[in-house]
Amino acid sequence: MREFELLEQVFRHNGRLPSFVELPPGDDMAVLRMPDSRLLVAADQVIEGRHFRAETRPGLVARKAVTRNLSDVAAMAARPWATLATVALPGGYGDARSIELIEGLRSSAEVFGCPLVGGDLAVHAHGDGPLTVGVAILAVPATRSGRVVARKGSRIGDGVYVTGTLGGSLRPDGGGTHLTFEPRVPEAIELLEALGDSLHAMIDLSDGLGRDAAHLAGDPALAIEFDVGSLPLTAGIAWRAAIAGGEDYELLFTASRAPPTVLSGGTRVTRVGTVCERRDAAVVAREGAGRTDVSRFGWEHGP
Amino acid sequence: MREFELLEQVFRHNGRLPSFVELPPGDDMAVLRMPDSRLLVAADQVIEGRHFRAETRPGLVARKAVTRNLSDVAAMAARPWATLATVALPGGYGDARSIELIEGLRSSAEVFGCPLVGGDLAVHAHGDGPLTVGVAILAVPATRSGRVVARKGSRIGDGVYVTGTLGGSLRPDGGGTHLTFEPRVPEAIELLEALGDSLHAMIDLSDGLGRDAAHLAGDPALAIEFDVGSLPLTAGIAWRAAIAGGEDYELLFTASRAPPTVLSGGTRVTRVGTVCERRDAAVVAREGAGRTDVSRFGWEHGP
Repeated sequence: MREFELLEQVFRHNGRLPSFVELPPGDDMAVLRMPDSRLLVAADQVIEGRHFRAETRPGLVARKAVTRNLSDVAAMAARPWATLATVALPGGYGDARSIELIEGLRSSAEVFGCPLVGGDLAVHAHGDGPLTVGVAILAVPATRSGRVVARKGSRIGDGVYVTGTLGGSLRPDGGGTHLTFEPRVPEAIELLEALGDSLHAMIDLSDGLGRDAAHLAGDPALAIEFDVGSLPLTAGIAWRAAIAGGEDYELLFTASRAPPTVLSGGTRVTRVGTVCERRDAAVVAREGAGRTDVSRFGWEHGP
Repeated sequence: MREFELLEQVFRHNGRLPSFVELPPGDDMAVLRMPDSRLLVAADQVIEGRHFRAETRPGLVARKAVTRNLSDVAAMAARPWATLATVALPGGYGDARSIELIEGLRSSAEVFGCPLVGGDLAVHAHGDGPLTVGVAILAVPATRSGRVVARKGSRIGDGVYVTGTLGGSLRPDGGGTHLTFEPRVPEAIELLEALGDSLHAMIDLSDGLGRDAAHLAGDPALAIEFDVGSLPLTAGIAWRAAIAGGEDYELLFTASRAPPTVLSGGTRVTRVGTVCERRDAAVVAREGAGRTDVSRFGWEHGP
């Protein structure tokens, strides 16, 4: 079984989740109701050999551990609030690298206004235990409305948009962005402020445009149809690779009004498709008269 | 450098922590101010080979990952609210064990009223990567007063008390409790309700009575003096071993009034010492006329 199915199976037992869980596990973040506010929570991890190489600088490892979570905050159009981290160090990792790592966690979180407020540091019992960094992130609604943006909510006729460019983590020169991407936190808040209730649904692109779009088109009556010619591809990347490639950490969203085409920080917003009635596949790439089912293009269930 | 010093060094840079962090990292949990409430947060982890053996049942691993965090909630006399988990599985761990593990996280959290609301599951790139489970826990104040109990706050003349018995994780028959202990969550809340403002400071016993008491006596004007004869020792455990042994997960607290001697669930509360003016060591064990400095009895800086 894959991760998604395993977690699904367990969370299905969560039928008895208390009512303060407004949005249960399965979205980018869970939404919890406080007496007079809402809190958003999520956790993610990076593991040596899986998400970065043993020789990757500790500061970059730390940055990625935090920014992966920040990208989930962006996907909800929420404001990062606080961060916790657990770090399992390889034996013999040494003080200098350990300090660079923890300082990287602290400063990466601070830059985005969500201070590192706790955590745990331990050393693997075996010297070759891989560096593993877990981060839990808390966020709050970014606007007075208290609204956050879930994966569900798309409607037929909505435009489908992405920020930035696709395929950047795959750059042929090897300078992929998977360690250095900028989570789209201010961009997402700007979009929510500009679009209000016209911003219907949003997700961050972590597994690949195809798979991630399939989450946005979760309602079996809906499909997302991409116009291949409109995709903002990184130079030198073919569209099939871009749709299947993960770790873009751009925003994919649906809206009933057109958003700004350029956001304050200079990030471009591109219309790449439309929410349609589902005929066959949940996610379709249209190229001239051709239609390709791309709903499984991406990590875990890749083509 | 040891964990504590590394974290200290990094958190010292946290001078710019925003004012909503009411109690910064360094206590059992950090306390964050929400508009009309407070939120307590902490994170901890368990690692194969370090906190449990490779052959330990996945359900027990999961339970310990959650209950270690719950013990921190108890130490603040707070109420557990929600849980997040990151799980790094060894390659080839298999579906059956994976499901037992995640279901163990879910059910252990549910029992204590803090549902598992999110997290991440990943598989180590190398088959022998050790099982690593990180848990972040959120809690809220347990009483209407909104009060939580920190490590600081002891006053000269306070009684020093522990719940339950000490040394249980070391039982000579091998049936140690370090995997199966009951976090003292309801007991802590009952103590706060019974003692109110007379409950001055509290910590859970994870590193050993000596070291943990040193945290309670953090003020350089204060010392904690234990009366060795009063320690509620597990049968067959010598007092020096019990003071140095970690993972009791009992509560150690100071109060200006006597608490109930037995709590609702049957847990005994024993007076084991007094908060005194510091003469020499921060934590002293008195046995007749003998005085032993036990402030470093415990994990990390053990005798």
